[in-house]
Amino acid sequence: MVELNFNPGDYVKIRLALKEIEGRVIESEDKNIILLKLASGYNIGIPKENILAGRVLKKYKEEEVDRKIVQNNKLPSIGLIITGGTIASKASQSTGGVRPITNVNEFLEFYPELLNMVNIKKIEVPFKIFSENMSSGHWIKLAECIKPMLEDNDIKGVIVSHGTDTLHYTAVALSFFIQNLNKPIVLTYSQRSIDRASSDANLNLQCAARMALSDCAEVMLVGHANTEDEYCHAFLGTKVRKLHSSRRDAFQSVNAKPLAKVFPDKVEFLEKYRKRGNSKPEVDVLFSDKVALIKFYPGQDPSILDFYALKYKGIVLEGTGLGHVSGSDSLHSWIPTLKRHIKSGLVVCMTTQTLFGRVDPYVYSTARELLDAGVIYLEDMLPETAFVKLGFVLGHYGWKVHVKEKMLENMAGEIGGRLNYI
Amino acid sequence: MVELNFNPGDYVKIRLALKEIEGRVIESEDKNIILLKLASGYNIGIPKENILAGRVLKKYKEEEVDRKIVQNNKLPSIGLIITGGTIASKASQSTGGVRPITNVNEFLEFYPELLNMVNIKKIEVPFKIFSENMSSGHWIKLAECIKPMLEDNDIKGVIVSHGTDTLHYTAVALSFFIQNLNKPIVLTYSQRSIDRASSDANLNLQCAARMALSDCAEVMLVGHANTEDEYCHAFLGTKVRKLHSSRRDAFQSVNAKPLAKVFPDKVEFLEKYRKRGNSKPEVDVLFSDKVALIKFYPGQDPSILDFYALKYKGIVLEGTGLGHVSGSDSLHSWIPTLKRHIKSGLVVCMTTQTLFGRVDPYVYSTARELLDAGVIYLEDMLPETAFVKLGFVLGHYGWKVHVKEKMLENMAGEIGGRLNYI
Repeated sequence: MVELNFNPGDYVKIRLALKEIEGRVIESEDKNIILLKLASGYNIGIPKENILAGRVLKKYKEEEVDRKIVQNNKLPSIGLIITGGTIASKASQSTGGVRPITNVNEFLEFYPELLNMVNIKKIEVPFKIFSENMSSGHWIKLAECIKPMLEDNDIKGVIVSHGTDTLHYTAVALSFFIQNLNKPIVLTYSQRSIDRASSDANLNLQCAARMALSDCAEVMLVGHANTEDEYCHAFLGTKVRKLHSSRRDAFQSVNAKPLAKVFPDKVEFLEKYRKRGNSKPEVDVLFSDKVALIKFYPGQDPSILDFYALKYKGIVLEGTGLGHVSGSDSLHSWIPTLKRHIKSGLVVCMTTQTLFGRVDPYVYSTARELLDAGVIYLEDMLPETAFVKLGFVLGHYGWKVHVKEKMLENMAGEIGGRLNYI
Repeated sequence: MVELNFNPGDYVKIRLALKEIEGRVIESEDKNIILLKLASGYNIGIPKENILAGRVLKKYKEEEVDRKIVQNNKLPSIGLIITGGTIASKASQSTGGVRPITNVNEFLEFYPELLNMVNIKKIEVPFKIFSENMSSGHWIKLAECIKPMLEDNDIKGVIVSHGTDTLHYTAVALSFFIQNLNKPIVLTYSQRSIDRASSDANLNLQCAARMALSDCAEVMLVGHANTEDEYCHAFLGTKVRKLHSSRRDAFQSVNAKPLAKVFPDKVEFLEKYRKRGNSKPEVDVLFSDKVALIKFYPGQDPSILDFYALKYKGIVLEGTGLGHVSGSDSLHSWIPTLKRHIKSGLVVCMTTQTLFGRVDPYVYSTARELLDAGVIYLEDMLPETAFVKLGFVLGHYGWKVHVKEKMLENMAGEIGGRLNYI
């Protein structure tokens, strides 16, 4: 067998018995296979024993700044925002983990199919971090970064690439921050870094582009519908959650159907949606960070509320079942503590840690006690969605006396997945 | 139409054109239908317009103490523990919600099928509360209540009826408290109270009995496998979670297959299991309440750790994705606070809020930082399971220097659903 000094990222030429092949080396799980990403975007695996000769045409450097990406400006235009995460990362040879890529062209180079579908008129990289490190300031920056793209009539839709860890929280924030939408905003991700053969990034990005060109003017999350590399689902931003730590179909609809099945070349809608149009989007990023999410567990001491009440304005409880924490029949009743803080102005909302299903304060005595204490029951709203919405509502000083109505107003399909303009 | 003064719970006789029917009135959603529970256990709905006459044979009283339940002591014996919850509740006419039933015979009267399958040699009612009000003291009481039933050779298995809200936490506690099990311990529940036509209690209880008579010596949770009233699943106590607030198939396996499909008359095992035998069960209820479960959310202030570190010995974090909280690249890095408290002896474990999938500290830099700080990564253990296990491990003073090893030792299938004796 020939000696091959190839490293992931190298652009190489390989001679086989009947032909020569050029491509970029990607990391292979199998030591006896050379994996190449071809110019077409397809990956090909070549058994080393079949290789007669091979040489590196261009050595891979982690920082290559002079790449040229050729765009076709006859294609419909989109805006692209890159924020970091696995979709903008590569395997790192030093740690065995992944590291962020640092160059926009390097990002695009990995996705030639995208450039066959759209002309990327505007690219923004407002920050580049893994999503577990984001907070509300990033959501606000993102909304502000999207705004001019909504106002640019050439741009048909906006794609945001983002880490998966807190992607659903960001989708919720954008759903509330940007109202009266005129074109699609599509968040997407990958679970495996883009230089791995098994990466899900390519299909996700193509389906995100297809959705960005569609007539659906919603904040959506697009990603693999199942473990096959076949099609994606588009989810409403307020009704989706990461439900697997590593599978490519990590995101699932909760208490709503997906909005659409998305293929690289077509969209099949499953639900009603807001149509793209000439409405003037409103970007409203008022947000209070003085909100917390508390997941209840059996025997939990309610004094945790004393800690939060000192500095916070609102709390979302992730209760059990139909929306419970320990009531009067328990050794650690939360009722007196809740009553005291709610009386002093703390807003307390109830969701359920079952995630699926809705809360209901009218079945069991514990919930009736909680309702009497002033706890706001949030129907079938996801705890994560409720947390972000409460920050949004409490960020609006003018809504101060209407917090309960606002929390129960269906602003972005967060209740029942029903959109209020249908 | 005749005037019928029937109330739910009344035992009545109805005359139709061709026959007379006796049964107990159960609440009907349709005002034009009288629903009866027959002696056979079946429910029958009779349109009011078909009823020629009807009278109450025995008025229902909420407190009837003199019911006689006839048991067949030729049937195999089981032990039954009733702890409250919907499975031991009835619709309350006053609130429209449900209220606990107060009499054991009243409980059994609703389940005639159970008494055709087993002889209930021993019934215990250690406490009667809804499960959101339970805490570790109840788990301990329950284990101590089960112990003599394990030692009684006549008793083939133990059924525990329990509210759904925290049933999976109790299942975990019993899985750790009772080791070296010699016979089945089966927890079951219902989502609808037993006097409703749609109640799931009857099938759950029959399948629980079938499982209690089986040769599987595990702590299990048995309940509806789907929304049909057809068969149940038996789940390993450490790998199950309530994933819907109201559906009858509220409980689902996470990161493991169900142990078995259970029908009232047969069990089809799907996984390997410990066989019933002559082992001597050990009941070990040492438990520390100084543990907390914290679900991380974007931007969360790490000072929550300062609050817990004052009084607590251990914390289970429900991180994002592969097991993350905000790292060094964020505005609110948890790393310094975690380092400080772990150095001072606080035990910090990591699970994932995706619930499905496993944590992995070797992929991203944030997790490598957390690992370096001393955070213990708990593989694919559910957050709820990890919380109870940490209380159990920290309750054992003798394990003090082995906390990490003990947390990563697969004691009851909590890691990978693999049982350590297979």
